[in-house]
Amino acid sequence: MQEQGDASALAPLRIGVAGLGNVGATLVKILQNDGVELNKKLGRQVVVTAVAARSRSRDRGIDISGLEWFDDPVALAKSDSIDLFVELIGGEDGPALAAVRAALEAGRPVVTANKALLAKHGVALARIAEDSGAQLGFEAAVAGGIPVIKTLREGLGSARIGRVYGIMNGTCNYILTRMGNEGISFQECLRDAQALGYAEADPTFDVEGFDTAHKLAILASLCFGCEIAPNEIFVEGITGISQADIKVASDLGYKIKLLGIAQRSPEGIEQRVHPTLVPKSSAVAGVDGVLNAIALETDYVHELLLAGPGAGGPPTASSVLSDILDIARGTRVPPLGVPSHELTPYRQAPMRAHEGGYYIRLNAKDVPGALAAIASRMGERGISIESVIQRPDLRVSDPAADGIATRTVVLLTHETMEATVRGTIAQIASDGFIVGEPQLIRIEKI
Amino acid sequence: MQEQGDASALAPLRIGVAGLGNVGATLVKILQNDGVELNKKLGRQVVVTAVAARSRSRDRGIDISGLEWFDDPVALAKSDSIDLFVELIGGEDGPALAAVRAALEAGRPVVTANKALLAKHGVALARIAEDSGAQLGFEAAVAGGIPVIKTLREGLGSARIGRVYGIMNGTCNYILTRMGNEGISFQECLRDAQALGYAEADPTFDVEGFDTAHKLAILASLCFGCEIAPNEIFVEGITGISQADIKVASDLGYKIKLLGIAQRSPEGIEQRVHPTLVPKSSAVAGVDGVLNAIALETDYVHELLLAGPGAGGPPTASSVLSDILDIARGTRVPPLGVPSHELTPYRQAPMRAHEGGYYIRLNAKDVPGALAAIASRMGERGISIESVIQRPDLRVSDPAADGIATRTVVLLTHETMEATVRGTIAQIASDGFIVGEPQLIRIEKI
Repeated sequence: MQEQGDASALAPLRIGVAGLGNVGATLVKILQNDGVELNKKLGRQVVVTAVAARSRSRDRGIDISGLEWFDDPVALAKSDSIDLFVELIGGEDGPALAAVRAALEAGRPVVTANKALLAKHGVALARIAEDSGAQLGFEAAVAGGIPVIKTLREGLGSARIGRVYGIMNGTCNYILTRMGNEGISFQECLRDAQALGYAEADPTFDVEGFDTAHKLAILASLCFGCEIAPNEIFVEGITGISQADIKVASDLGYKIKLLGIAQRSPEGIEQRVHPTLVPKSSAVAGVDGVLNAIALETDYVHELLLAGPGAGGPPTASSVLSDILDIARGTRVPPLGVPSHELTPYRQAPMRAHEGGYYIRLNAKDVPGALAAIASRMGERGISIESVIQRPDLRVSDPAADGIATRTVVLLTHETMEATVRGTIAQIASDGFIVGEPQLIRIEKI
Repeated sequence: MQEQGDASALAPLRIGVAGLGNVGATLVKILQNDGVELNKKLGRQVVVTAVAARSRSRDRGIDISGLEWFDDPVALAKSDSIDLFVELIGGEDGPALAAVRAALEAGRPVVTANKALLAKHGVALARIAEDSGAQLGFEAAVAGGIPVIKTLREGLGSARIGRVYGIMNGTCNYILTRMGNEGISFQECLRDAQALGYAEADPTFDVEGFDTAHKLAILASLCFGCEIAPNEIFVEGITGISQADIKVASDLGYKIKLLGIAQRSPEGIEQRVHPTLVPKSSAVAGVDGVLNAIALETDYVHELLLAGPGAGGPPTASSVLSDILDIARGTRVPPLGVPSHELTPYRQAPMRAHEGGYYIRLNAKDVPGALAAIASRMGERGISIESVIQRPDLRVSDPAADGIATRTVVLLTHETMEATVRGTIAQIASDGFIVGEPQLIRIEKI
């Protein structure tokens, strides 16, 4: 174990960076500026020696004149002029996949921030890495600057995780935070987020929950030692959340957050992404704006919460660099925490078996006995109601109402089953006492 | 880098545990129960083979019959029958120090949960470890189950930390939380904490802030790359916090927490432990009960918050185990993040130069012009007042009043300097308008 005792004698670690967007350019800048500090810490130089990107002439605020240039990231990944390949191209297939695979097959360590790639090909890439003896780091792929991958792979001893949940998308959290603080609509918040660069021109991937789902699939694999299953996640975005929902939730002591949640259940593993009512007193409720937070519930450590920036050039580049440093130090750990042949097949717990509380907002026809009929249908199915709110100021119009007088009612249920709630709502709808589609938001016990 | 490729061929890692209190017994139990899981993860067996403790016959709920027994921890530390020595004896000198030193000198890796030992001898022990090529892990020494040492040593890339602060003592946080929630006195909370096992029979070490100071000194060294300086910390405990302080602070939007804070300042490094007003909306304000939390403010990652259990057998044993696993994997990192010869001498920023806001509670004599005189003294010294509270229901009696009619006044200042505040209060006291000793609580910008 002393082969690295005289670390100063080690040759410099030569880094090749593919993709010089915000994160890539920041990484190059950090390594150029902090080289001396890192050398002190590691007893070994870490230097970017080669890069690959689409345009050679674009001004990125960094000096690439002394670096070897590659037009083709795969050629860079395979090149013997580097010791470690950093993939910051993005995309779940295409050149990112080809380059990462080429580097790993050549036994060359890889660091990537590419969650889509990991979610889709993580197990296959881990297998290649293990076969060739190369390390594969992806701290930056989940929750940007928060060291959650390191914590899961190395930091929890043998603690078993029962549930992981968190805020994993800064765009959604920014929108929900502003909706809550300022009383403005989803559309207005989204426009601001786009103007500020927090949301893409096409925001679907973020606001519909798919980005969160990718990250959750990676976390679930690390937490439960199972294969990554990004396509077996129940996903619901935040586009349907109204001001009324946020206000009523707040009156009842809750905030609405888009959470990714994975937990063990008797049926397998539940993976779900949806807007969620969380108690205002909970730690995640206090994580606002573009910040992310991941909570890990373990048997030995109880709950651990990690909160910080989930995106942005410097935090993400900093996480990429922490993986590079681990590899420079010679740290060895299986990419997915356990060797890939020890991963168990993913067994999906059906969403209909999910148990929890529900926030139900519906438009009841303004006729005598409507509320009683609704409540008794719930009682028949064994759904116990925690709160009911029907107030003159609470009125969410529904195009389906079409002139029919309605009253907006919000019901909070105690713990029950998804299938039961859905069945009961269908029953209530067919009874003819409500108009339009009820709003259903899950409540998480935290 | 492939020497551990076929990890399953590695010999078992034989662990010797000195000290079989709560943490030690839990660790032995975990290793006995989770051996198979760990073997899967590591491709290597980790087994406790020897123990040292005071009483051989005491029932600890674990089976030690198959383990080699040592009466003397130093003999265990030196024994060739183990590969890694775990020190859970406690105490800053004595057998703990002798045993850890003996193991490191023999080139044997050590894992310890002993903050007092680290605070006093950390730099010397790091030097011995580096000289002999042995690893030294102490994740469990600071904030129990929270992986803050790993994050600081390995997880932040080259990010520079400007300030570290947090709740590092569960006893104090439990007491302050209950005082805040239930309106009961410090003494009553302390008695309950003692009955529940959250506080020692002699609680001085916890409630006077010394335990927090030990942990802070270790964190400051890791954050700033300086030597550990546990004796150059400004320390103030929570025994002087009254219900009145908690209530008034709450009315003004603050909670009172015992924080350990270390930050870079133009004069050097400020290390301080004191009761602190933190905004209710801040993340640390939401960390209640026996939980701990550490916030790291860095240039690249902005703020990172890690929250979780700061003590208790399972979380602490889990952190000890995560160090053991790192050593079993062959991870190599200097004990204090940088090699000890790169540590800079500790340069203490004087507390009188500290800048911040202040909460000042004083008993003004009930005579015309008293408040005006106090306020104008503050104005003369350039202290700008943010809030003043004087209410009939706010009355903290002071034995020094001795029949003199007084009114309790609370002033919150904007940012000013410690020396200025102290000088002004002394001036106000000599003016004769106040009775007794004013209460001074610092406000932290978070």
